[in-house]
This record gives sequence, structure tokens and C-alpha cells, in this order.
Amino acid sequence: MLKNFPSDFRYVLGLQEASVVGMADGFAQATRNPAVAVLHTAAGTGNGMGNIISAFLNKSPLIIIAGQQTRQMLLGDPYLTNREATKLPEPWVKWSYQPARAEDVPAALVRAIAMASMPPAGPVFLSIPLDDWATETDAVPTPRTVSTRTAPDPDQLSSYAAQILSAKKLALVLGEEVDKSLGWAAAVKLAELLKVPVFVAPLSERAVFPEDHPLFRGSLPIARGALSTALEAYDLALVVGAEVWRYYPWDGGPVSPPGLKILQVTNDPHDAGSALVGDSMLSDARLALERLYEVLHMSVPPVSPIKTSKATSPEATPARSILKNHTALMTASEAFSAVALLRREGDLLVQESASNVGDLLNAWPIVQQESYFTSASGGLGWGGPAAVGIALAQRNRTVILAIGDGSLHYSVQSIYTAVQQKAKLIILVPRNEEYAILKEFAVFEDTPNCREYTQHEIDDFIRWRH
Amino acid sequence: MLKNFPSDFRYVLGLQEASVVGMADGFAQATRNPAVAVLHTAAGTGNGMGNIISAFLNKSPLIIIAGQQTRQMLLGDPYLTNREATKLPEPWVKWSYQPARAEDVPAALVRAIAMASMPPAGPVFLSIPLDDWATETDAVPTPRTVSTRTAPDPDQLSSYAAQILSAKKLALVLGEEVDKSLGWAAAVKLAELLKVPVFVAPLSERAVFPEDHPLFRGSLPIARGALSTALEAYDLALVVGAEVWRYYPWDGGPVSPPGLKILQVTNDPHDAGSALVGDSMLSDARLALERLYEVLHMSVPPVSPIKTSKATSPEATPARSILKNHTALMTASEAFSAVALLRREGDLLVQESASNVGDLLNAWPIVQQESYFTSASGGLGWGGPAAVGIALAQRNRTVILAIGDGSLHYSVQSIYTAVQQKAKLIILVPRNEEYAILKEFAVFEDTPNCREYTQHEIDDFIRWRH
Amino acid sequence: MLKNFPSDFRYVLGLQEASVVGMADGFAQATRNPAVAVLHTAAGTGNGMGNIISAFLNKSPLIIIAGQQTRQMLLGDPYLTNREATKLPEPWVKWSYQPARAEDVPAALVRAIAMASMPPAGPVFLSIPLDDWATETDAVPTPRTVSTRTAPDPDQLSSYAAQILSAKKLALVLGEEVDKSLGWAAAVKLAELLKVPVFVAPLSERAVFPEDHPLFRGSLPIARGALSTALEAYDLALVVGAEVWRYYPWDGGPVSPPGLKILQVTNDPHDAGSALVGDSMLSDARLALERLYEVLHMSVPPVSPIKTSKATSPEATPARSILKNHTALMTASEAFSAVALLRREGDLLVQESASNVGDLLNAWPIVQQESYFTSASGGLGWGGPAAVGIALAQRNRTVILAIGDGSLHYSVQSIYTAVQQKAKLIILVPRNEEYAILKEFAVFEDTPNCREYTQHEIDDFIRWRH
Amino acid sequence: MLKNFPSDFRYVLGLQEASVVGMADGFAQATRNPAVAVLHTAAGTGNGMGNIISAFLNKSPLIIIAGQQTRQMLLGDPYLTNREATKLPEPWVKWSYQPARAEDVPAALVRAIAMASMPPAGPVFLSIPLDDWATETDAVPTPRTVSTRTAPDPDQLSSYAAQILSAKKLALVLGEEVDKSLGWAAAVKLAELLKVPVFVAPLSERAVFPEDHPLFRGSLPIARGALSTALEAYDLALVVGAEVWRYYPWDGGPVSPPGLKILQVTNDPHDAGSALVGDSMLSDARLALERLYEVLHMSVPPVSPIKTSKATSPEATPARSILKNHTALMTASEAFSAVALLRREGDLLVQESASNVGDLLNAWPIVQQESYFTSASGGLGWGGPAAVGIALAQRNRTVILAIGDGSLHYSVQSIYTAVQQKAKLIILVPRNEEYAILKEFAVFEDTPNCREYTQHEIDDFIRWRH
Repeated sequence: MLKNFPSDFRYVLGLQEASVVGMADGFAQATRNPAVAVLHTAAGTGNGMGNIISAFLNKSPLIIIAGQQTRQMLLGDPYLTNREATKLPEPWVKWSYQPARAEDVPAALVRAIAMASMPPAGPVFLSIPLDDWATETDAVPTPRTVSTRTAPDPDQLSSYAAQILSAKKLALVLGEEVDKSLGWAAAVKLAELLKVPVFVAPLSERAVFPEDHPLFRGSLPIARGALSTALEAYDLALVVGAEVWRYYPWDGGPVSPPGLKILQVTNDPHDAGSALVGDSMLSDARLALERLYEVLHMSVPPVSPIKTSKATSPEATPARSILKNHTALMTASEAFSAVALLRREGDLLVQESASNVGDLLNAWPIVQQESYFTSASGGLGWGGPAAVGIALAQRNRTVILAIGDGSLHYSVQSIYTAVQQKAKLIILVPRNEEYAILKEFAVFEDTPNCREYTQHEIDDFIRWRH
Repeated sequence: MLKNFPSDFRYVLGLQEASVVGMADGFAQATRNPAVAVLHTAAGTGNGMGNIISAFLNKSPLIIIAGQQTRQMLLGDPYLTNREATKLPEPWVKWSYQPARAEDVPAALVRAIAMASMPPAGPVFLSIPLDDWATETDAVPTPRTVSTRTAPDPDQLSSYAAQILSAKKLALVLGEEVDKSLGWAAAVKLAELLKVPVFVAPLSERAVFPEDHPLFRGSLPIARGALSTALEAYDLALVVGAEVWRYYPWDGGPVSPPGLKILQVTNDPHDAGSALVGDSMLSDARLALERLYEVLHMSVPPVSPIKTSKATSPEATPARSILKNHTALMTASEAFSAVALLRREGDLLVQESASNVGDLLNAWPIVQQESYFTSASGGLGWGGPAAVGIALAQRNRTVILAIGDGSLHYSVQSIYTAVQQKAKLIILVPRNEEYAILKEFAVFEDTPNCREYTQHEIDDFIRWRH
Repeated sequence: MLKNFPSDFRYVLGLQEASVVGMADGFAQATRNPAVAVLHTAAGTGNGMGNIISAFLNKSPLIIIAGQQTRQMLLGDPYLTNREATKLPEPWVKWSYQPARAEDVPAALVRAIAMASMPPAGPVFLSIPLDDWATETDAVPTPRTVSTRTAPDPDQLSSYAAQILSAKKLALVLGEEVDKSLGWAAAVKLAELLKVPVFVAPLSERAVFPEDHPLFRGSLPIARGALSTALEAYDLALVVGAEVWRYYPWDGGPVSPPGLKILQVTNDPHDAGSALVGDSMLSDARLALERLYEVLHMSVPPVSPIKTSKATSPEATPARSILKNHTALMTASEAFSAVALLRREGDLLVQESASNVGDLLNAWPIVQQESYFTSASGGLGWGGPAAVGIALAQRNRTVILAIGDGSLHYSVQSIYTAVQQKAKLIILVPRNEEYAILKEFAVFEDTPNCREYTQHEIDDFIRWRH
Repeated sequence: MLKNFPSDFRYVLGLQEASVVGMADGFAQATRNPAVAVLHTAAGTGNGMGNIISAFLNKSPLIIIAGQQTRQMLLGDPYLTNREATKLPEPWVKWSYQPARAEDVPAALVRAIAMASMPPAGPVFLSIPLDDWATETDAVPTPRTVSTRTAPDPDQLSSYAAQILSAKKLALVLGEEVDKSLGWAAAVKLAELLKVPVFVAPLSERAVFPEDHPLFRGSLPIARGALSTALEAYDLALVVGAEVWRYYPWDGGPVSPPGLKILQVTNDPHDAGSALVGDSMLSDARLALERLYEVLHMSVPPVSPIKTSKATSPEATPARSILKNHTALMTASEAFSAVALLRREGDLLVQESASNVGDLLNAWPIVQQESYFTSASGGLGWGGPAAVGIALAQRNRTVILAIGDGSLHYSVQSIYTAVQQKAKLIILVPRNEEYAILKEFAVFEDTPNCREYTQHEIDDFIRWRH
């Protein structure tokens, strides 16, 4: 592949495939275009599987190419063959393919781009035998375009609108697809028309609404019972661009708030199918918000405009004082406040700090579209390389990565590329020096003995196999 | 799982699942027993896939357990669910299972151990929903045993013996299964009976014969043409415990040496099936060697015993002088010689230094069974954690890990566990400061422009997206 | 499942699972609703796999339920277990699932209906352990609705409209999705607005346009070269609701007509991705046709209305004479003409007679939406049971099944159910008494010796193993 | 494939792929050699999946070849393509492959034979693009041989022998692998040495011991509780060539008889792994029986030989009288007795009559190795074609097929081939004119309303959709 490598392609070297995939994911998200990641075959591709899963859940259009052994030798399963090549990345890619002929490689790439780009976007996998790159072919496929979004069924849209108009108390819940479809303006317009509170869907990997807007109500809880309580006052929820519901811990609550009718909009048939309650409409988030506004603004009485002047950040003063007068160890919250204070407009925030995310987002309200990134998968090892990829994509903005001292280790190799490529990246590592999330869960799940070994126990262990 | 964790289990914490799996693999190999590796679900298991592939090809009996989301929520595909849980590690595990009921978890573990242990051994995968661990059950499965080896079909063994007796010129080729079955003594006995040269099969991940033995002839080449040349003088090859053939680069040669009849012995039906030439007998390597000796020693005329006194290591003097008088940068070869000089009996060698493996094995001939380890997969990121796992398994021996500066990065996280657990581990890193194997291949594959970017090009790239 | 079987469900017994699935497919298509098919597990589901593939390609919303062994015994893989239950029907179902708990069965059915219904519709598979049906649960899932169609991206629609307006010579090519979306009227309206010839996409399994309309031009050829010739006069093709292109035999022609720009509309991302040329827009066929009309009718100059009076069927007289005066064996063409003559409005035609389809459609032009059915898969054994299923769905219409004497054998068991259920079904079997399609291909593919054995050869064969 | 079809190959035409696979399975079993089955692609292969599952569980070495679309068109997924070709038959084949190059087809066939033949034997699947057959190649693979059986680990064998010697009360349980390994003589020899009762493992698809032998005790029950009762007097069971245990209905009993130690011998790692109790030894059944005899006959005191004169068949007289004097409808039992009376030595029995199998085997005790066949899968539609395949393989013996009137329908197409090929086949169909097994289960599972619809209900149903 590297022979006669085209001069208008750039090859960015990464160490460890987890970092390579994570960087490509960040790059694709930040450029809003498919990106290519090239991996070693078999075990190499295996190293990248964690971040391939993250890219799938992030709905990032990646073309993942893995070298395969020479076609002439494949039948004998030689060294470094990816046996049953298309299975390795499944079920976490949208399409997995090894061309039946060397001549098909160019057209397979065109198909790969198409498959990766259609909604919901996501990674595809191509296994290309080594010798295929050297095969001459006349077949030059023409570039082609495919839909990257669809619009709602008009009948279903009307039904949604009617239900919204007759709701007693409506909540607007927004998820990551609003940000990914560049739908903030449409969301604000609809929310202000309807004068309804705006919640962020649980565990959204993007910010979806100006967090300093008066209608903004923050994130919904991530467990069944708590979420039901949070929405118990409402009879209808319009959930745009999110799962219904992205729950994390089990707390025994009901599937969804009782008495609440849910209207979901998503571009992902999987997320529509896995919603166990409510109705689901397939659509690009922004197009649905815009269409709903068009239909509803005739029926909704005019209201006085909502005052959207930005609230004064309450952390401003303490943060500045921290910087000036701090003598003891900073808390994470203090550190975030301090950094937030210094940020410039346009700075981007990447987060993989599960134990501190609440503090971080308190200190750093997101007020700009496409400026906050985390992973939909919850997998560790994504934040580091994704931040590098985002920094490479947005060369004139600074990326601040807030990453736990546990997470940092997962894809520490990505720092190599950041340095090589002179990425504008600041890494902020709150150290709790423990496996905090495990311990929190241990309390939540009533597992009292979950703690680190004492030194005595470790010494005992060391003697164990002597 | 951690609640009421049994006191006779030890929990070793690793950072990044690639390291966890690699450590478990090394531990299983060095203890000759199944080992348990516990991974985060979904993206976490994904991180470990590279080393799961290596464990599969290493035929290491691993029980890989991944937590799964709470059974009550699974239908809705909540956060951190491993959707289609059993598919993720396929096709690189022997068995992949999520129990149909919480009550089946204990018996599923028993089945997992059985599946992992039978020949060829390998990893199995269990997805266990979080709440299953808290389910009470009366079902206490009884431990059970399964075959870990089989013996040859006696008719086929007779046929092999007859062909060996009538061969004009026989080569004995040994592979990793000889070491894994503790078959060195049997191999030496048969080789000395037949007075035939002993080759190591290409890319064997173990040492398979005393490398200071007069009949030892070193490793066979790893490409078709070169291997054919190396064996062109022979009319019969008895290949025990190896693939036929584990080729790496394509050089256009024939599938196998023309005119050479091949008799393979392997415990792996896959490796028997993927052998494109010769006959294949399924058997434990050591049992086959012993049976062949039993059958043949009546028919082979007695010979004077082969002198097996160990040769004086030719590197001894230069190595010592290196240590005393060296002023310039050491070459890798010099460094290996120096370390080899200092090694003690019982020291173990782990290798993941593709660019230097020849120099290393020249400097450090292996003369003891089960004392040399590398990965059958060729995947990077295995050597570091495997060395840690081996050190934890063999607490009273020192492990020397020779690992390239490229490889070191892949699973650098394993060093954490080595330190925590006070593993007796020495890491030797030859630095070539380049992606040497890629460049060598670039020459081999005639790809002249494959080189690092110059600083100018990198700067140009940096400006690219401004 | 049969215990306490609800009285508002009807259970229709079929013999052989291929027939059961085919009947459910026909029923689902003719009712435009998901249908449930219940199969024996393992080998039983296996019998139905051929028609599951057909249902997938037909985009029929089927809920396929296979009994699974009792949950308590599953770990031991007892008799009649579907091991790795979800894999058997893959990759030919949209979703394959075995609930993690008995309590999830009701909600899994709700999810199954949702998954099957979203565009493109298709079969889903549920494996339900036997004892799950007897488990009590409070969880009563609420019915929910999902999108069954999406509308075009407005930007892409504008681009399509602009290209249509600037085309020198436009061809309108329609495929099965036009019929399945009830889009005939929209297609006629757009075609008449643009005054362009209307072709049927190759191998469409539905009729897509009134075949007696002046703009109707019949089906496009099914091989590359011939199709290119057929469209060589055009510079733009708008292909709605079809693959680009559904080719069958290989004739060495180009991927698509050179010089022809293609604009595809399909509801299936797979069909958009596998289109190797042109642009692809994801949308319901009818919605796209309607939207294009809306956009274009302002820009297209008014024309005199196209005369749509039905042409007099040229076969009318010969057909009647056949019935009166025929003495020799009828040809298939004559038989079809005769039957066509007698048909009543509302009669439905099902076809699985590959050797005669041309004659059949000549004799029987389709002039009514949703009145002609064949299989998108080309698989044999679908037509018989599908016709039965359609007859059960449309009790007040007569179904005429034209099926070759070869095809008839494939699912001959479906006749049992037709008789039991008193289906209004007429089966018309043209007998060529040979494997005609194979012989035709043998000529096409230059395989001269492909013929039946002579009696002498068969006798010789019989003696062979004595 | 049919072009230049070699004259030493015979092509037997079957209608419907279920019949084709079943015939090949019977042929392979009766010739003890791999057989080739050629199927249509995609939906055609789908039709055969039920019997592919049966062949897998029967451990029949089949090479299943499915035509695939022309390699040049594959990327575009044309008509009659088997998309993701290797997945369709999984997980029910041992190997599934589409060659990476046309030139690999011959060697892929060689590999397919090897993969299918190794223990446990089973079907493999090759997807061959149409044009591959026309590709010229110099590569002519050499035929090669592989192990079709393995012998026991000697250490494990010694342990088994010791446990047998110290058992208080031993039961010998034999399964289908005894017959398939031609192990009757070895089984008789061991049983007579040990003077122990011989049981048939539940649901064995072969006869495994002379059923007129004094030590023969018939089949064990097929449910947990009943099996436990049947073996409650024993403290050790040596189970050779069978699953532990092949249970069918769930009756709530224990996994295995309490207090019974089990020693299993099987050639199938899957069956060793799925045994939830006891120890498992991997070996060919016959080799294990022979080795155990060798080891044990020195330790077991000599006994007077067991009288093995065949018992006079008690059914002889009634059966003859049936034939002479019968006036009313015969019962199935009477019919079987009558036919058994007339059978000649060498006649073969194939059974797929679930409702009558007890009566059949009472009337027709099997006293000859490899003379009784049914399916291990329990799937319907196997018996008919398998009987035809067996008849084609054993041209000089008569095959009697006992098949229920329900089963007969499943693969009724196989009769065509039987007639064409003049197979010596007698089909005996006991008619119960009902879905008897379902009704029996309905009683067993307490499902009282499971019955046929009345005519009134059917009429009601017919009116339903008007």
C-alpha cells in the first residue's frame, strides 16, 4: 500500500492500534468526514478492537484497512494471516469485506466510504491482501455520493406534532445526534417556541444545547428509578437524537417513567428497536427539529422571547483565587475551574475522566456546538488518541483533554503521535490514585471487600508460588 | 464477582486489557494450567482482542471472563452492554458463551475449563451478566477431567515408521508442540536413534531441541523458495508439532520442497487441514515421538552414541570483553552476548524483538526445555505482559525480556503490574529508533519510498489543516 | 407456546418449514403487516433457511420464532438444541435474538416487530426456550410504533431535481420498492410530467407501473452488456426503488452504461452501498416520487396529457381461439394467454417459472398495483407457499400461481395447507420436463456436455457399486 | 463445474437441496467415505440447511459445494449471490470457505476433504464462484491423508482401567460412535470379559451392540429423572462413543444419576465439553475398547464364556399369523413384525418414525453392525433422502425405510431420485394421520388445548379475512 503512496495523502504514524483507531475516530468526528485507519492484520487489528467498538457506538465513519497475507498463500493460513478475515471486527462494524479479486480494491474502497457514511455512520472494515496493491487494473471507479441523512415520514411527523400540541407538560430531551447533525440552532428555536425545559439524555457523548441557556436543565440520571423520578412531572417527552434510555447501573426502577409518553427521533434503527417504550421516528435530528418547528410554529401562540444572555459563571471568582493563592493540593474541581477560567473561545474539550465528569462539566459549561467530545461506549483508552485526532483535524484550536490517571494508561501511546505531529493538546490528569469507579460501584452494589490489597497481602502473594 | 471473593483466589490487577490477557497467557503457559483473565465488557474486551488472538495461536488455555450488563436490562442494550456478546472474540476462541440462566454460571465455568484444556488448548470466552454473581444456586458442579492429549492411530503410526525406515535421506523437523508437550527427551532419543539432522520449524514460538546438540541444525527459512532450497537434499521430512509450513513473506517459491515427502504430526486439526502437502497424523507430539521410538528402535541398527558434550560458547570471550572495554554504543548483538554471559541456569527468555531475533538466539542458545517463549501470532504487545505472567508463575526464576523499542510501546502498561507484584523481570530493549521491520519489508517488497517523513514534511503537514 | 393459545390468534399448520416461511412471507406482503412464522428448532429452522433468505431479499417483515430446548438443560446441549441459536439464520435476518430471561419474551416480541418493520423491512429471528412460555411475568410491554419509511434529505432532493432538469435524455427506471410503497400513482404522475420512457429494473419481483401505459417500455436486460446497450441513448437515469443493477449472468460488459449518470433512490442502505456507480438517496420510493413531482412540476413546462387509454390486448383473439379449437399440446405461451383471457379484475398472479416468465408477462400485462408477486432471491421453493399465503391474506381474490414443473417440487408440501385452508388458488404448471434453465445456461456458458444421462448411462451407473 | 465433467465422477440429480444433502449424508455413511453435494447458491443452500445440521450431528464427512456468482460481479452483490458466503452454513459445518483465488480451487478441495475427515468427521462448505471452474491452473495438488481417528492418552487409559477394576457395579453404555468405528466386536469382547450389562445411550442414531446378546439391556431413557432411576443401582458407568447425556424432554431430574461416577470416551471435543459430569477421554471408540481390553484382560479373572446363541424371536409366530389372517387395519407394530419376518440378512433399516420407533426396534432387533440408521439431530426430512443415498451406496442390499406419514412429506422429493436411479428401496409408512408427537408432548407438557382445529373453526377462519 505504501508503494507509490499518493502525495495528497498524509500518513500519520501511531503506536499501538488502539491509538490509531482512536485518533482516526477523533479526526473523522472533527472533520465530519470519513477517515482511513490502517492496521496490522490479525493480532494488530485485535489491538484496535476496543476503539473500533467505540467508533461504532460513536457512529464515526471510519474506513479500517487491515493488511492481509499475500493472496497466493492464503489457503495455507500462513503466519500473520487474519483467518476468516471478515469476522474479527464483527459485530462492531457496518460492513466487513475482503475483495474477491485484487481488481476490486478500488471499487471496494468506494463502497466502503458509502457504507460508512450512510446513517447511522460507522466504521467499516476492509481486509486487503498484500499483493493486491501491486495489481494493475483499468477499473477506475467513479466517486459517488450517498445520503448522510434522511427526513421524517410526513405522516409520522404530523402525529408527533399533534401529540406535542396536546401534551399537558412536555419535556424536550436531546442527545448526541443533535450535536452531530449541527442541530443546536434548530433545537434552541424549537425549545424557545415551545418554552419547555431541555434535558440532556443520559450519558450523551456530546453537548447538545447551550448550557448557559435559561431552558437548559442538565443531564438526566443514568439509572431507571432516578430517571423516572426526574421526569415524573411530565406527560410527554420528545427525545431527539438519543437512545431511550442509555441506562448504566441497575437500580430496579421501571423501564421508563410510568405515565410518560415518549416520542423518539433517531437516525439509528438499532436505537429505535432497542427503545422498549414509546414511538420511534427515523430521521436526522436536525431535520426533524426543523420540520417540527415548521409544523408547530403556526399552532403555537407567540410568546415573548426568552432572554438568552449568558449567566455570569459562578465559578469565576473562586477559580481565579485558586490560581493565585493555592498552597495545598488542588481538588479536581478546583483544577477544572482554574483551567476553565483560562480557556479561549474555540477551545475544544475531550473527556475521559469517569470519576470527575460532573465536576468537570460544572466548571466548564459547554456553550458552543461540536466543542465537547467523549465516547458513547464508555470504553477506556479512547480519550487520549481521540484528542490527538481532533487536534490534528482542528489545527488552529487548542484541545484540552481531561483524563483520569487510570484512563491515561490505556492508550498512553497516543502521546507519541501528538508530539511528533506537534498537536495543540493540553492533557489534564486528575489523580485519585485509585480505581475509584470500581470502588464506587462496590458501594452501590454492596460489595464491601472490594479494595486494594495491603502491602502485607501482596508480599504474601509474592511468596505464594515459590 | 468481587463480592465474597474466595480467599484462595488471587486477583492481579493489570492496566489495559491487552496486558491482562498477555499476562494470563504467560502465566498459563508457565504453569501448564488454565488461567482466568477478567476483562471489562465490550470495548474493554475489545482492547484485549489482539492478545486473545495470540493466546489462540499459542494454544494457551485461558478462561476469559467479561462482565456483562445486568440481565434485567439486557434486552434494551444499555450502556456498556456487549451486544451479541459471544461474537466479539470470534473466531479466535474455542468456545464463546453467555449462560442462559444465572444458575448455570458454575457449571459453565467447569465446561469452560474443559473446552480450553482439550487439544489443541486455547482460550474460551464467558460473558457473565453482573447480577448473575449474586444469584443463589444449589447447583454445585463436580470438578471433572478431560483429555489434554491423544495418541496416534496405531495403523497410521506403522505407516509412518515404514516410510521412515525406507527413506533415503530423512530430516527431522520439530515445532513448538514438542516443547509444550515436554517432549525434548523423546525428541533427542529419536533423533539419536535415527542419526538425522534436526531442524526447527519456521517461526517456532518455542525452542524444541537442545541447541548445543551435535544434530541441531537451527531454524528453517520462513519463505517458500528458501525453505525448499534448505531441504532439497532430503526425500522425507518428519515434521513433529509444527505447521507445514508457517511461511511469512511471499517469495514465489513452491508450496513445499519438490520431491520431498512430508509426514506431519500435530495435535491441531486446523494445522493438519491447512497443510497443503504431505500426510498428517493427529497426536500429542511427545506421545508420537515416544511411540515412533518404540516401533523403530527394533528395526534400526545400533550405532555408537552421539557425543552430546556441550560446545564451548564461541561468544564467551568477546562478550566478556564487551563488558570490560566497551566505550561506543553497543550493538544489539553485543548486548545480547553480554547478557547471555551473565545468565544463570534456570533463567527464562521471552522475546519480542523481530529485528534482532537472529542475533539474540545466536548469543543465547536454548539448552533447556520450556525456557524460551515468544508468540505464535507475530502480534506485537504480547511479549511485555507475557513476561510478567511468566515471572509471576515462576517466582524463583529470573525472566529476561528482550523487546524492541517499537514493541515495548504496545503493552507498556504491563510494567505497572510487574512493579506492583515485584516480578523478577529484566527488560532489555535494543533501540533501533526506527520502524525497522517495515523498512526491511519495503526493500523486500520493492517499495522504495517507504521512509519516515522529514521534519520539513511534518511541518508542512502541520500547516495543512490551518 | 400453544398452551393458553390466545383465541384471537390463528394457527395455520404447514408441512416442512420451507413452506411455512414462504406462506408467512406471502401473507405479510399481501397484508402489508408483519406475520409470525413458528418453526421447529435447529434442523427444522434449517429447512426454512432457503425461504428466510428469500424473505430477507423480498424485505418482508417476518417474526420467525423457533422453539429452543428447555432453559434448564441448555448448557449441556441436549437433543434438539439449536446450539449458538442466533447464528443459524445469519446473515439473512435483520435481528437474531434469544432473550436473556424468560421475563423478556413479551418485550422481545415487541422489539422484534419494531426491528422487522423499519426500512428496509425484513425477517427477524427469536429463539425462545420451551419453558419460557410457562413463566409468569408482570411485565406487559406497551405496543409501540416505529417508522416504516423515511423521506429524502431535502438538499439531496434539490440536487436530484436540478440534474433531472438539465438532463438531455432521461430514463425513468422503477423497481419493486415502488410497488411495495404503493407508489404507482406517484410514478405515473412524475413520468407524465416529465414525458419520459419508463423501464422496469432488471429482475424486479413486483410490477411497478401500468404495463399498458404508453410510456411503459418493459424490463431492462439482466446482463451488463445488454443493459448498457438498452440505455445507450440516455445521459441520465433516475432509478427509483431498485438495485443498481440487479445483474444475473455475466456477459463481460461494463459495470454500468458508459456515459450514463445514475441517480438511485432506495430505502435500503445495502442496495445503496452495493451500487457501484451513481449517486444514492435513501428514501421511501413513493415519498421520493411525490417530492420530486412537487419540486419539478413548477419548473417543467405544461404538456398535453398523455393518453392512457388501455391498449387492446393483441393476444385476445388467439387466446380465445386456443380455448375453442386447440387439439395439440398447448405451448406455455398459449396456456398463459388462455388463462389471462379468463382472469377477473382483482386476480393476483404469483410466478416461479423461470423458463417462461417472458411469455407469461407478455400474455398477462399487469395493470394494477400489488397484483404480481415473485421472489427477489431467485430461489426455488418460494412461489408455492407464497401463493398460499397470499390467498389466505386476500380471501376474496383468486390467486393464480404459474410455476414450472421443476419449481413445483421444491415446496410441494404447501398444497396441503392450501387444501386444508380452502385457499382460492389455481396452480398452472407449464411442463418442459427438463432442467431447462440449466441447459440454457449451459449454452450461454459454453458447456456442451450438460445434458441428462441416457438410459444406458444410468443403467451403467446402477451396476457401478455392485 | 459441469463443463468437462470427469467421466469417473457420477452426477446424481436430486430435487430440492434438502434431499440432495440427505442423500449425500446417507451415501457417505454407507460408503464410509466423504461424499460431495452440489447445491444452488444462497436460497438453494438455504433449503439444504436442515439436513446440513443433521449431517453435522451425524458426523458425516460431506463436501458441500455451492455455486457462487461470477467473481467479476461479486462486489456489487448481483442476483443469486450468496452474500457473506461463508456464514450461511455456520455454525453447522466444520469449515466454511470461499477461495481467495480461482487457482486455489483444487487445493481447497483437498483441504476440504481433510477437514471433513478428521475426528469428529462432518460437513464442510465451499463456495466456488462460477468462473473459477473455467480458470486454467498448473497447480495440481497431491492427494494427502489425515488421521480419521486417535488413540487414548495412555495415562488416562490406565486411570480408567483402575476405576473399572475397583467399581462395585459397572454399567457399560455404548453410543453411535461404536458402530461408526466398526467397534461391535471390540464391544462384545470387553463386555464379555467384564460380564456387565450393556445399555444403549439415549437416542443413539445407530445400533451399537447385538440386540440378541444376553448382556444387552436396551436403550436408556431420554429424560433426566428416568435415566437416573434406570442406573441407580450402579456406581460406575463406562460410556463409550456417546454424549453424556443426550436428553430430550425436561422432567426435572438431576443432571446425571447421583452417586454414579461416569467415564466417557468420545472422539468429539464438543461432546466431551458438554458433558456436565464425569471424566472424558478423547479417542476413537473402537481403539478405546480394544485398549481397555488389552489392559484389563490380565487383571480380570477368567470366566466361563457367555452363551451368545441367538434367541428365537418371540414375534416370529404372531408376525407370520398377521400376514396370513389379517383382516382389520394393521397396527404399526404388526406391520413392523411382518416386515421383520421377511427381511433377509444384509437388509438395512432406516428409521424416521418418531411415534413408532419403540415398536419398530422391538420387532426388528439389530444384530449386525452398520445396518441401522437414523439421524442424530432429530430433524425431520432426513430419513427419506438418507435411505436413497444408502441404497445407492449399497447397491446389492435392500434398504427398508420406516417413516411416519408426517416425516414423509418433509423430503418427499427424494423419491424422484430413488426411481430415477432404480434404488432398491422399500418405504414403509405407518399412518397415524395426526401430529402425534406434538400431541404426546402436549400431554407431557400439560397443554390441554393442543389439537387440530375442527371443521367449524377452519370454516370460521376462512371467513376471517373476507
